[in-house]
Amino acid sequence: MKAAVLAACPTARLVDISHSVEPFDIRGGGFVVWAGSQGFPPGSVHLAVVDPGVGSDRRALALRAGTNFYVGPDNGLFSMVVARRTDVEAVSLVRPRAASATFEGRDVFAPAAGRLAGGVRLNELGEPCADLALLPDPGPSVLWIDGFGNLVTNLNPPVGALRIGGQTVSASARTYAEAPSRIPFWYIGSLGLVEIGVRQGRADRVLGVGIGAAIEELPPS
Amino acid sequence: MKAAVLAACPTARLVDISHSVEPFDIRGGGFVVWAGSQGFPPGSVHLAVVDPGVGSDRRALALRAGTNFYVGPDNGLFSMVVARRTDVEAVSLVRPRAASATFEGRDVFAPAAGRLAGGVRLNELGEPCADLALLPDPGPSVLWIDGFGNLVTNLNPPVGALRIGGQTVSASARTYAEAPSRIPFWYIGSLGLVEIGVRQGRADRVLGVGIGAAIEELPPS
Amino acid sequence: MKAAVLAACPTARLVDISHSVEPFDIRGGGFVVWAGSQGFPPGSVHLAVVDPGVGSDRRALALRAGTNFYVGPDNGLFSMVVARRTDVEAVSLVRPRAASATFEGRDVFAPAAGRLAGGVRLNELGEPCADLALLPDPGPSVLWIDGFGNLVTNLNPPVGALRIGGQTVSASARTYAEAPSRIPFWYIGSLGLVEIGVRQGRADRVLGVGIGAAIEELPPS
Repeated sequence: MKAAVLAACPTARLVDISHSVEPFDIRGGGFVVWAGSQGFPPGSVHLAVVDPGVGSDRRALALRAGTNFYVGPDNGLFSMVVARRTDVEAVSLVRPRAASATFEGRDVFAPAAGRLAGGVRLNELGEPCADLALLPDPGPSVLWIDGFGNLVTNLNPPVGALRIGGQTVSASARTYAEAPSRIPFWYIGSLGLVEIGVRQGRADRVLGVGIGAAIEELPPS
Repeated sequence: MKAAVLAACPTARLVDISHSVEPFDIRGGGFVVWAGSQGFPPGSVHLAVVDPGVGSDRRALALRAGTNFYVGPDNGLFSMVVARRTDVEAVSLVRPRAASATFEGRDVFAPAAGRLAGGVRLNELGEPCADLALLPDPGPSVLWIDGFGNLVTNLNPPVGALRIGGQTVSASARTYAEAPSRIPFWYIGSLGLVEIGVRQGRADRVLGVGIGAAIEELPPS
Repeated sequence: MKAAVLAACPTARLVDISHSVEPFDIRGGGFVVWAGSQGFPPGSVHLAVVDPGVGSDRRALALRAGTNFYVGPDNGLFSMVVARRTDVEAVSLVRPRAASATFEGRDVFAPAAGRLAGGVRLNELGEPCADLALLPDPGPSVLWIDGFGNLVTNLNPPVGALRIGGQTVSASARTYAEAPSRIPFWYIGSLGLVEIGVRQGRADRVLGVGIGAAIEELPPS
């Protein structure tokens, strides 16, 4: 895929964001696409693939959302990007005639990403399309678990007490250093969302939860 | 090694292909070198190291095959590149006098790769050499297993039924989406070779085989 | 973090050195920072983060040591860089007002690294500071264990016999190929330091030691 990007745009600057999305985890991948594209300079192109669906008749997409471009399959991977922007513009990519049936990343997505990086306009890559495949809103839940076991949620701060994994999280702190020891607490993470952590521990293990776990916001007592 | 490439060619564009070749697996590494170098723009330089052999008196090589350059040890790592091209040109690299005896990657291969990337010609790097170390032809077999458990073989399509791991693979499909569920099938992979997969499963586990496993082509029944 | 570097310096060339330092392992991280910054062209900027300490009142640093720049937390991570140079110059970074309390890598370190890469001078990033947090000298010990199980020590060659993990290492060799089989031996590694390896085996397992293990130099017998 990187070769195909460079073949289309020899001056492209390639940045790997993540190779740790689990196979078939479209929701987790969608979080990484959204989160990983924050902060890049205007005009950045974000190429993302999560299987399955390869070789099915799903469409191949290129999107503009704000100053970012996105390229990938129309399988719900861009649900979070679309849900958080009002200015999304999408086209259905024209497939190159020689494209392999089983390797869209290399033959369809990467060349399109390279062309966008090289200055080709979105509407030169395909026909506008509107009815994108989107995942249902999961409700309050865990979007992602980072390498330290912290839970990234889709809740906006501030929150009161939270119920998750059969336990109640009522502590909060501004930073790890200020948090109580060994007890789950919430804080505002780097993405501006509520995260749940355990100082010098792993919140995912302490709470026994994974990506997608439901969260209940408790009323003030 | 990356520092040494950049020291020799400050404008080099570095692309990591794979760090997942097992130590000492020259055959698997040779597949990755060949497969990973497909599709890059002309003049690309592909640097590859698989141990062992460090510090032995093996030669250090730079090759041109088509429009690609390759740099690495003369231990069979380039067998597949050489077997699939007729226009290979090779030189035995002159070792810098200060080269460490135990880190050829940094002190011999990377500087040579950087110089090639910067436009130095192959014959300026050493004397032509012809009798490269090559691995014996393995016969029909598994070259590589990807992250999904799919088996990449060295067979060219089309094939009939295949015998592998004590089982017969007779189904085939154009894409994963069109494949039968849970049953091994063959398809044409992204490299144009026959691959064996299991839809929503792992072919390596279902067939109980690893890299190097022999394959028998069964006569039409 | 990469987005923040590129936002500050769109022409920056990003090179990943390591993501395999264990959480909270400041000493191991410090070795990787020092070792991984050798050989890069003058003016290179080396950005390093090892937790914990995020959100505590530790300072954020930028250093110049020789022709290299370093950016990261004042938690001892640069102990080895500082111990091996006499020409270190350091400043305490001014924190951007909008910096997140929990993600200094993105909001403090990466922008500073990008600015240095773009040509901003060290003294424009903050006030000079001298009393850096430094780890105590560990004495003769294992600094790092590479992917093959080789032990990188902080001993300068040549050495006599070594005592480590309850065993004596008295063999030495110039290269792996010249080493005895299955027996730990020392050699001069790629960094010019004494390393301990086992040919076609793992020295860490044979000796039963990890990072930080103490080493005793035995007197000549």
